[in-house]
Amino acid sequence: MTTATQTTAPIQAPIERLVAELGDDVVVTDADRTEKYRWDRAHDPSAGTPLAVVRARSTADVQAAVRFAAAHAVPVVPRGAGSGLSGGSSAIDGCLVVSTERMTGIEIDAVTQTAVCQPGAMNAAVKAAAADEGLWYPPDPSSYEICSIGGNVATNAGGLCCVKYGVTTDYVLGLTVVLADGSVVRLGGKRIKDVAGLPLTKLFVGSEGTLGIVTEVVLRLIPVQRPPATLVATFASLEEATAAVLAIRRQLRPSMLEFMDQPTIRAVEDMTRMGLDTEAAAMLVIQSDEPAGHAAAECQLISELCTTHGATEVFTSDDPDEGEQFVVARRNAIPAVERTGTLLLEDVGVPLPQLGTLVEGIADISRQRDVTIAVVAHAGDGNTHPLIVFDPADADQAERAQQAYGEVMSLAIRLGGTITGEHGVGRLKKGWLADQIGDDVLALNHRIKAALDPQGILNPGAAY
Amino acid sequence: MTTATQTTAPIQAPIERLVAELGDDVVVTDADRTEKYRWDRAHDPSAGTPLAVVRARSTADVQAAVRFAAAHAVPVVPRGAGSGLSGGSSAIDGCLVVSTERMTGIEIDAVTQTAVCQPGAMNAAVKAAAADEGLWYPPDPSSYEICSIGGNVATNAGGLCCVKYGVTTDYVLGLTVVLADGSVVRLGGKRIKDVAGLPLTKLFVGSEGTLGIVTEVVLRLIPVQRPPATLVATFASLEEATAAVLAIRRQLRPSMLEFMDQPTIRAVEDMTRMGLDTEAAAMLVIQSDEPAGHAAAECQLISELCTTHGATEVFTSDDPDEGEQFVVARRNAIPAVERTGTLLLEDVGVPLPQLGTLVEGIADISRQRDVTIAVVAHAGDGNTHPLIVFDPADADQAERAQQAYGEVMSLAIRLGGTITGEHGVGRLKKGWLADQIGDDVLALNHRIKAALDPQGILNPGAAY
Repeated sequence: MTTATQTTAPIQAPIERLVAELGDDVVVTDADRTEKYRWDRAHDPSAGTPLAVVRARSTADVQAAVRFAAAHAVPVVPRGAGSGLSGGSSAIDGCLVVSTERMTGIEIDAVTQTAVCQPGAMNAAVKAAAADEGLWYPPDPSSYEICSIGGNVATNAGGLCCVKYGVTTDYVLGLTVVLADGSVVRLGGKRIKDVAGLPLTKLFVGSEGTLGIVTEVVLRLIPVQRPPATLVATFASLEEATAAVLAIRRQLRPSMLEFMDQPTIRAVEDMTRMGLDTEAAAMLVIQSDEPAGHAAAECQLISELCTTHGATEVFTSDDPDEGEQFVVARRNAIPAVERTGTLLLEDVGVPLPQLGTLVEGIADISRQRDVTIAVVAHAGDGNTHPLIVFDPADADQAERAQQAYGEVMSLAIRLGGTITGEHGVGRLKKGWLADQIGDDVLALNHRIKAALDPQGILNPGAAY
Repeated sequence: MTTATQTTAPIQAPIERLVAELGDDVVVTDADRTEKYRWDRAHDPSAGTPLAVVRARSTADVQAAVRFAAAHAVPVVPRGAGSGLSGGSSAIDGCLVVSTERMTGIEIDAVTQTAVCQPGAMNAAVKAAAADEGLWYPPDPSSYEICSIGGNVATNAGGLCCVKYGVTTDYVLGLTVVLADGSVVRLGGKRIKDVAGLPLTKLFVGSEGTLGIVTEVVLRLIPVQRPPATLVATFASLEEATAAVLAIRRQLRPSMLEFMDQPTIRAVEDMTRMGLDTEAAAMLVIQSDEPAGHAAAECQLISELCTTHGATEVFTSDDPDEGEQFVVARRNAIPAVERTGTLLLEDVGVPLPQLGTLVEGIADISRQRDVTIAVVAHAGDGNTHPLIVFDPADADQAERAQQAYGEVMSLAIRLGGTITGEHGVGRLKKGWLADQIGDDVLALNHRIKAALDPQGILNPGAAY
């Protein structure tokens, strides 16, 4: 049996007792095997080394882990698929990582139009299971094939369809949550409307594992989406592209309204060789899922608005497969840019009218700091993902990238925006949170945290 | 100057100081003038007598009132338009009623597609102001002409369009809130997506004035709704009508799916003389706001589903004005039934497949207790409003009505439902809350309350 001596943990908890209780298949303490659980996709350089990883099979396993942690004051880092982009799942020295990767159950209730999911179920698996019943789970992070519902709930994840269909919290009807003392509560359920008591379900969605560990989710589903029509427009300037976004949003409700700037287009084209216009300053990928005929009319109007705002080329297609190629290109933006260097991933959002100022301001920061910043955006929501590219071997460039990282968040805050629209604060953005929400609101966060997790063992250091 | 001696309050707070601070136009202590602030539309028989009513003009007025209350341990009952149906605004002996009726400002930002509203603004006024800019604020309680946005936020109000467009919380982007110590915080803002820190905006929506007093709301707007097509179907049995609801919801996303049973139809017909079929056991009012042509096709499919499920008559109209007459009839259900006696208003909801069992179970309770229960429902959400009619002069009947009131809630709970889908728990439904959410979740409510309002001065006795 392995013991805690392999960690650098300040806490000497008798982990062998938890191993004895749950088995060494569930409670993994071997450093070789726990190594991959230290980081999420943000590659937080400060990630610590866990005391153990609990590969929970059930709510009861999670309860046992949290009870152990509570008894021995061990921090707990909840972990879904490890696809987080803000370091919300970075391990802490001496912590228990509670992984839900084995809890992948999905039950579709076609009559109630709900899915009951375990947190480790992939977003894509939920979509697929729903589709088998002619139903749809809309929220669609670009990473939907590799991100789990538990992580989506933890961050209140968004995606591409949110401009019309909303974000994760809009679809969460109920949660089963293991609290900081190891007790379990059921919040909400298969009821579309329910205002009995405080809206605790909503409080947990987006709490980044700091108030409890979600072990089951009841999701609302809707009838399957109509096949969308797609429009792709290119622009010679950022200003024209973002002005077109505003004009479209002022009149219409597209089901997708995405933006890529030139560095993003070039990275995607390098990866896909699909013939994108690498000379364009920006490209919009827009969809309408109105009924056929009406979608075409909507695309026609969008096309006119794009042209009015200086589009250099507009391409439309009512072939969903052809349209999907451009959506895939958009979804591949982060992996594509990642091929060009190490990334600092931003997730800043602003009120829609500030989108142009934000995007142009980011380009200024890129020039001033002499680092590439590729901007991909859920433009219709004012939510952008500036991807700061740097070579970690170049200390000076890495330093300039870090400066740019903070400057982009500060710019968003100055424009009345947010440091994170859908990825979460995690551990990497905490330094900017007070600037956005203010010390008073930050203190409110801490009061609620203290009320629900007085020992402070749940994901300490994350979110707020 | 009036003093507190007119009240039966156990607390002897120096209200004259608050009168001196804000003026006797704002701080009303005269019993004749405070009388009407004792009740909301639920006519709670236990309503107390306030020490004073603060007719706030601004966030600063609300802060002054709450600071005074905190200093003197005086309970505060926040109040919007007084249209609440669960006694959430019933006065408490010796309390300060803080009324937002004078805070009616509305600013529409057409570019951001948001409305910044003071809490006393009527729902209908927000809709009208949005419409002037070609925009729409969807949530539409039947009482939308007489209910305020502050009250809507306090209860997370629903309405008729929610089956497709969601409830109040789905549209709240930001709040200004006066906390229990009189400090003020701004939560969220004009950002469509924002996950920075805990989702506190969501926590306050539906908290029934127990965590803070909302003094400003940022609402999301969407492009104006298309004129809907309307379908009205009558059925000879409750079973057939509710089966039709399920069949429709299984395939389609109507923009309205409402239900009235025979006692409701008869009361509405008595009031409106519009020629409703008073022999029908139930009637559905359904709308589709799909684009013209597609709405007609959707109505055709709905018509077929109704016929398959035994509809005795189906009427469709693509004339929005004609359709609106039936919607108005539906909205008038509560006032119409109110003409036949005193009401106990229910707001129970169940998972959709249980709708038939709920509605038939309510009919059983009506027979067993020998009291009229008229059922009107947002059927597409599984949310029903059984209206229990009684004559308060008939003590025995009043007692049977009270028994039925509890039995309906217990039935909903047994069916996996809720005691309140959109009206709030208020003071009248508290006795059933623990049965629904459990003692453990109730305790969580109290922990959050204690964290944010340690003195317990904000709307004590309400909600949980």
